[in-house]
Amino acid sequence: MNSEHMILGVALTNSFGAHPAAWRLPHVNPEAYTDIDVTVEHARTAERGGLQFVFIADRLFLHGDLAVSNPLFNMDPIVTLSAVAQATERIGLAGTASTSFFEPYLLARQLKTLDVISNGRVGWNAVPSFEPDAFANFGKEPPAREKKYERLHEVMQVVQALWGSWGYEAGKPDQQGRYADPAHVKPVNLYGTQVGTRGPLPVPPSEQGQPVIIMPASSGYGLQAAVMYADIIIAMPSSIEEGRAQRQAIRQAAAQAGRNPEDIKYLAFAGFTTGDTERDALDTRLALDAHTDIRGPLARLSAYLGLQQQLTRPDEPLTTAQLTAVQAHPQDARSIRAVELAHAGWSPRDILAHAVFDPYPSVVGTAGQVADHLQEWFKAGAADGFMLNFDDFSTEIGNFVEQVIPVLRERGIFHNTYEGKTLRDHVGVPPQYGVNPRITTGPQ
Amino acid sequence: MNSEHMILGVALTNSFGAHPAAWRLPHVNPEAYTDIDVTVEHARTAERGGLQFVFIADRLFLHGDLAVSNPLFNMDPIVTLSAVAQATERIGLAGTASTSFFEPYLLARQLKTLDVISNGRVGWNAVPSFEPDAFANFGKEPPAREKKYERLHEVMQVVQALWGSWGYEAGKPDQQGRYADPAHVKPVNLYGTQVGTRGPLPVPPSEQGQPVIIMPASSGYGLQAAVMYADIIIAMPSSIEEGRAQRQAIRQAAAQAGRNPEDIKYLAFAGFTTGDTERDALDTRLALDAHTDIRGPLARLSAYLGLQQQLTRPDEPLTTAQLTAVQAHPQDARSIRAVELAHAGWSPRDILAHAVFDPYPSVVGTAGQVADHLQEWFKAGAADGFMLNFDDFSTEIGNFVEQVIPVLRERGIFHNTYEGKTLRDHVGVPPQYGVNPRITTGPQ
Ligand SMILES: Cc1cc2nc3c(=O)[nH]c(=O)nc-3n(C[C@H](O)[C@H](O)[C@H](O)COP(=O)(O)O)c2cc1C
Ligand SMILES: Cc1cc2nc3c(=O)[nH]c(=O)nc-3n(C[C@H](O)[C@H](O)[C@H](O)COP(=O)(O)O)c2cc1C
Repeated sequence: MNSEHMILGVALTNSFGAHPAAWRLPHVNPEAYTDIDVTVEHARTAERGGLQFVFIADRLFLHGDLAVSNPLFNMDPIVTLSAVAQATERIGLAGTASTSFFEPYLLARQLKTLDVISNGRVGWNAVPSFEPDAFANFGKEPPAREKKYERLHEVMQVVQALWGSWGYEAGKPDQQGRYADPAHVKPVNLYGTQVGTRGPLPVPPSEQGQPVIIMPASSGYGLQAAVMYADIIIAMPSSIEEGRAQRQAIRQAAAQAGRNPEDIKYLAFAGFTTGDTERDALDTRLALDAHTDIRGPLARLSAYLGLQQQLTRPDEPLTTAQLTAVQAHPQDARSIRAVELAHAGWSPRDILAHAVFDPYPSVVGTAGQVADHLQEWFKAGAADGFMLNFDDFSTEIGNFVEQVIPVLRERGIFHNTYEGKTLRDHVGVPPQYGVNPRITTGPQ
Repeated sequence: MNSEHMILGVALTNSFGAHPAAWRLPHVNPEAYTDIDVTVEHARTAERGGLQFVFIADRLFLHGDLAVSNPLFNMDPIVTLSAVAQATERIGLAGTASTSFFEPYLLARQLKTLDVISNGRVGWNAVPSFEPDAFANFGKEPPAREKKYERLHEVMQVVQALWGSWGYEAGKPDQQGRYADPAHVKPVNLYGTQVGTRGPLPVPPSEQGQPVIIMPASSGYGLQAAVMYADIIIAMPSSIEEGRAQRQAIRQAAAQAGRNPEDIKYLAFAGFTTGDTERDALDTRLALDAHTDIRGPLARLSAYLGLQQQLTRPDEPLTTAQLTAVQAHPQDARSIRAVELAHAGWSPRDILAHAVFDPYPSVVGTAGQVADHLQEWFKAGAADGFMLNFDDFSTEIGNFVEQVIPVLRERGIFHNTYEGKTLRDHVGVPPQYGVNPRITTGPQ
């Protein structure tokens, strides 16, 4: 891993893509949600492009209105990644598991087993759950935020302590001697208020020691935890300025906590629909939006453009009078972008098709435009890399690998191939085994 | 599935085999415990033989003395089976998961996801944990037996209710219409004293609906639960008489509970070391026992032979005086077998090498002797099939598939190939989706 190169993770999550209507496209296999072969094929394409890892987000309840969309998350990230591990060689395998429900012994065992059998390619996106719908599936009410993060801290430490409990010093099996030195496979005896364990975990070190830890940049509590534990922080900044500011704040907090800021990689979410021309890309997006009632989005767009009146002609560029009246909300990246697009002469429908209201910055355009976006953010210090999201995964992953990756390589900002074997190698984070000394003082 | 044919499951568990010294054999890969390719190869060999399923037992703590043996269980059954699923086509995939620690929502999700992606090949061996060492890994003390089985009943019902919560009536995704009919993906709202859930689980039916349920024939409480929920009951009878009696008792209890006795398959554990001759097989076993101090086993053997004095010449057949003195304990199948072997002229070392003290009946002999054992038990109604255990998995699975399976087929007691696609097809148990009506009245 070379810091001139960006890191690229890609959200597999549900096998259709980020757009809830992707499953309807005629070229898409409508059974992709349950067909592991589709997921495997997507992961293999990403691997062909040298992407550092695939990523599976998670929610512990049914998310998505089945009348119009597939369930928006994966059936089960760990089970899915284990199957994908078996069908891939090099790409990293990152999955989300909530700290709110899993017993740490079971979670530590599953993640480290997966890390061992994949030869050190696993990343764990550790998140607390927050939705009442998730807690209801465990017969519980959501706890207060303090309790939620207390459990997160305890789970992070217990899981890592278990990971480290089979020491490297136990050695490799020696058929003439012993299987392992029992003196170096030791209990951890770590007990918090909410969870605890005796240990040890009967899982030897993986090729990268233990899984890489990923955490989201969420609230203050969440960021504080991420700075303590995470190798990778994933975030959804809406602009370069916001990304740069958050990345800097994290690096400073890391340094204050005694960590090397280089050891935390900050990845920004970004979404893509690519086409041979910008018009092609917009048409692809419009096909996805075909089932969406445009009235709600149009009303929202009027507001973001700072107009007093509704937009009534979705397919005509704004009138001169409207263009004179538009005004961006200066703090809102979406509003600024919408105003730019209006001035460039796009119709309201096309402005919407530029994905201005996606939850993260998105490019609907050519491979060159996609590469420009990534390069601009990366060069501005707004991110160490990106978490890619595709509207229609089945088509876009191929477009990205065949059209965007070569451009990034030409520009010297993406590696030519995997330099190492493990996810730690791929993303350039240092070895860690067991609970890192930085947190032996316990949750704060 | 034809009732003239026996069902054969095979315990993969740890990838070395049932003998704790198997990892030392020169032809064995000493890294098999952590190398998924070994497990996959074993499963593929079993599949080549048409075995109905592979099986992974589990304990939630480090089991086995690392100075002399590998950890005796699998790193993680669910993660391992998901990788194996990806590398096999037809064979069933049965894994153990304790009802004592897993949250039912997470467990239901993992098992059904695995069932969906493997095209309906999954079986769940549902067991309560009992060892204090397991509870310690969850920061807990073992509960009273009543509480342990109360939780088991609640988990069985909540998991199955979640499995059934995405109804068949929800339909398949229709790209011109809806993804699924939300009216048939419904909450379950099932709450017990120890666990509960709202649901639904966002996992559609698998090719066999939901996983097959396996339960062990353990104590009275355990058997009562097995008769309520299990499709397959696994057991360790020590003799044909014991197997027949237990199988009959289960069938009667099933009938009383309103189930068709044919719908529960009773499988007996059995162990094997095969050789071209009985002498060869014994020598293979002796090589495994080479690291075992023989003094303890010899003392135990004297007692089982009913002798007052110790056996001091391990490599000589018993003297006439000793043979006159030996006397079997009439209720003890091991003692009866040891006396038979002594009378047949085997030395004490060879009697031990016949695996008389294995935890289940074992054959150390030729393929014909192995087939005779299985046939005799099967024809006597002592089992509907077997859970095979091999001393040295790497060699014995191939021996079994190439030498024993053809004999069983010749004798018309094993199928020629998989007749169906799912585990339910392979073992001949009826469809089930959601909580079977037989248990809607709740735990007793
Ligand atoms: C980039 C990003 C990715 C996230 N991924 C997930 C996820 O996959 N699953 C999940 O339950 N929550 C996810 N979250 C939510 C956070 O874990 C957190 O619960 C949420 O931001 C609320 O945090 P708070 O309670 O500290 O305000 C993500 C958040 C961010 C910013
Ligand atoms: C054939 C058989 C297989 C079993 N497999 C497992 C297993 O894989 N993991 C486990 O924890 N217990 C296993 N058990 C143990 C039982 O689940 C049960 O906990 C034990 O027999 C004690 O039961 P009791 O508390 O009702 O006496 C097995 C038991 C039998 C008879």
